[in-house]
Amino acid sequence: MNAALLIDDVRLTPILISDPPLLNTQGVHQPYTPRLVVEVVTRGGVTGVGETYGDGTYLDLARPLAEALRGHSVTDVNGLFRLADQVCGGSPAPGAQGTDARVEADGLRGVRTADKLRLSVVSGFEVACLDALGKTLGLPVHALLGGKVRDAVDFSAYLFHRWAAHPAGGEEDDWGPALDPAGIVAQARRFADEHGFCSFKLKGGVFPPDQEIAAVRALAEAFPGRPLRLDPNGAWSVETSLYVAEQLGGVLEYLEDPAACTDRMAEIAARTTVPLATNMCVTTFPEIAAAFTRGAVQVVLSDHHYWGGLYRTRELAAVCRAFGVGLSMHSNTHLGISLAAMTHVAATVPNLDYACDSHYPWQTEDVITARHVFEGGRLAVSDAPGLGVELDRERLAALHRRWLDDDGTMRERDDAAAMRRADPAWVTPAVPRW
Amino acid sequence: MNAALLIDDVRLTPILISDPPLLNTQGVHQPYTPRLVVEVVTRGGVTGVGETYGDGTYLDLARPLAEALRGHSVTDVNGLFRLADQVCGGSPAPGAQGTDARVEADGLRGVRTADKLRLSVVSGFEVACLDALGKTLGLPVHALLGGKVRDAVDFSAYLFHRWAAHPAGGEEDDWGPALDPAGIVAQARRFADEHGFCSFKLKGGVFPPDQEIAAVRALAEAFPGRPLRLDPNGAWSVETSLYVAEQLGGVLEYLEDPAACTDRMAEIAARTTVPLATNMCVTTFPEIAAAFTRGAVQVVLSDHHYWGGLYRTRELAAVCRAFGVGLSMHSNTHLGISLAAMTHVAATVPNLDYACDSHYPWQTEDVITARHVFEGGRLAVSDAPGLGVELDRERLAALHRRWLDDDGTMRERDDAAAMRRADPAWVTPAVPRW
Repeated sequence: MNAALLIDDVRLTPILISDPPLLNTQGVHQPYTPRLVVEVVTRGGVTGVGETYGDGTYLDLARPLAEALRGHSVTDVNGLFRLADQVCGGSPAPGAQGTDARVEADGLRGVRTADKLRLSVVSGFEVACLDALGKTLGLPVHALLGGKVRDAVDFSAYLFHRWAAHPAGGEEDDWGPALDPAGIVAQARRFADEHGFCSFKLKGGVFPPDQEIAAVRALAEAFPGRPLRLDPNGAWSVETSLYVAEQLGGVLEYLEDPAACTDRMAEIAARTTVPLATNMCVTTFPEIAAAFTRGAVQVVLSDHHYWGGLYRTRELAAVCRAFGVGLSMHSNTHLGISLAAMTHVAATVPNLDYACDSHYPWQTEDVITARHVFEGGRLAVSDAPGLGVELDRERLAALHRRWLDDDGTMRERDDAAAMRRADPAWVTPAVPRW
Repeated sequence: MNAALLIDDVRLTPILISDPPLLNTQGVHQPYTPRLVVEVVTRGGVTGVGETYGDGTYLDLARPLAEALRGHSVTDVNGLFRLADQVCGGSPAPGAQGTDARVEADGLRGVRTADKLRLSVVSGFEVACLDALGKTLGLPVHALLGGKVRDAVDFSAYLFHRWAAHPAGGEEDDWGPALDPAGIVAQARRFADEHGFCSFKLKGGVFPPDQEIAAVRALAEAFPGRPLRLDPNGAWSVETSLYVAEQLGGVLEYLEDPAACTDRMAEIAARTTVPLATNMCVTTFPEIAAAFTRGAVQVVLSDHHYWGGLYRTRELAAVCRAFGVGLSMHSNTHLGISLAAMTHVAATVPNLDYACDSHYPWQTEDVITARHVFEGGRLAVSDAPGLGVELDRERLAALHRRWLDDDGTMRERDDAAAMRRADPAWVTPAVPRW
């Protein structure tokens, strides 16, 4: 085996990146959110980069994996999972949702298990390995995944109800508040103008359903014929979900996670023709069978962090293809490394049926030298070796310094805690909220 | 993109390889069977090899694909399928089995469709591309598939009822006949002695079920505790299948394609605890959902020729993993190129739950310079660049000469026609035969 491809060193750099006061059903985004930048350095002197969640639980899993990775080949993507199982205090994959004793609630990510955390960590390492491999071989990451089937990837505008400023103050961006249908339409218009997005997703679950219905209707009026989506992160009951589906049936491309579990999604799906999408009740392979055999979801919003990397995302796409389930891509707060990774894998998936989500336009900070630019709502697929991004070490150091200097309040993303700064009585709403 | 990886030339060499008089429910193997050797030559001067079926229908599809492939990159595996759709007179993927108007019966391969033929052709090109890519990059094919998760792959002995000689005469091998349980046990013993195989599969559907039950019982007695399989290629009714399952429940690892379609398999599966395997009713992605949601099969015998290559085989494995369906590998008459390809992909699949089938020990001719050697029933996974096999051009030319010289009778594999040479009244038995 090519010794130049063996991993000589792994660097982990936790950072805090600024994030606007975007509202969701759990609370509000903190002023800073933690991310982890993974660098894999080969004996051949090539550095590959990856990015994943940066909360403490993820860091605790990433550190032993980084140690164990030395001497492994960057080609050994399949071996990463076994290695992670061995060194991250892992356990066998749990059964379907709810059968694993080690679960805890995590409103925005569905049920949280040790396996899900581990897979998210692995994804950062996998992407770094593929970047290093591609750079070494002179091949773009998409070529390592069998080759792109499209030259550009469609993204949708990710609209949020938001405040003008964080409750604790700090630097304000120039977006202003968006707390009603008119505010959402104005936000959408700016997204369309600046990035050319042609489809729009509204994060819901923040206001009573009728207000969010009104916001989607206002979008439909402002952008006739454009694909629209609404995502309350599982905040609604079955009956509320059906009510919203009925109200918005004519304008929604899909309704995303109206209710919080496969059982409820199946019940809703059986009673509406509006397609249901999810990135909450189907986020791991063991959760697929129950949802697909019952027709509980019509679209899976893949996320290479959740699913364990780019290889696994392609496998998810294959499962969706076999079952006639649509595929799109979910996004959480992320930087340009992950957006590059998303774009590469998205370019290789024939059945990418919908424009991908991305928080990226909300992120004003990055760790790459040249930020991605959406044109006509699309990102061109890079043919440069690896991911086609270059780490900005000065920016990385500055964002790491912020993480080091933090008193601990921002190192764990906690949207409910952030909300309590505005409303001390706030508790994470019980589901269904409406 | 690396210009050295662009395809400069594609060579197609149809050949006829000798095959012993092995019996199955359709008839008997012909003295020679057609295969197609695909060579892809890059601008960098590297040649990659692949192998697939060589009957006329496959050649007719392979020729335009070979023409169209010039100028494409050997990294562009995903694009092969679209290209094949465009140039091979393709059509959209059909729905599940039986819904496609262009189907014809093909007893050993399930329902035959234009898509299945095209995928088998693509598989030969895909393997050749991966071989060329691996050779160019200095990486074994398994590393192009994410890396091996095992260093050796288990195979099982593939036992056949057989005659000593072909009805038309010709050179005889030294195996002699195997037409009763004692003959099968003797064959198994020789396979175990020569190759170290630890598990045994008997091709059934040749004699009335009670005789084949007796053969499996004799194997169980001769090799206590060893995994045993029986495969009548869909020759039985539901009731007969259940009778055999009951008779052999204690000794069978699985029962393979007892009946010929998903409906019947589902009915059998519902009434027995013996796992059912298939390489007939689930041989394409559109056939998966109906079978998996009904629990019709517990093991899929993948075949990279059927499924469209090594990438697709890995995708099938992912689907099986998600649904808790076991995975093994099917084999038809093939040479060392395809065995190398099988071994590489098998090495990368974590859920390869059973030893793979291979006809290879029955094939005395090959087109590679160093034949594969089973040790302890296993093949070591090559770490040499590409597939790790080298084409023997002299042998290839000789076998091609045989194809050129053939009067047409051997260029299409037809086990029923071969049987008619012994029994002029033979017609392909209607299913269920018993």
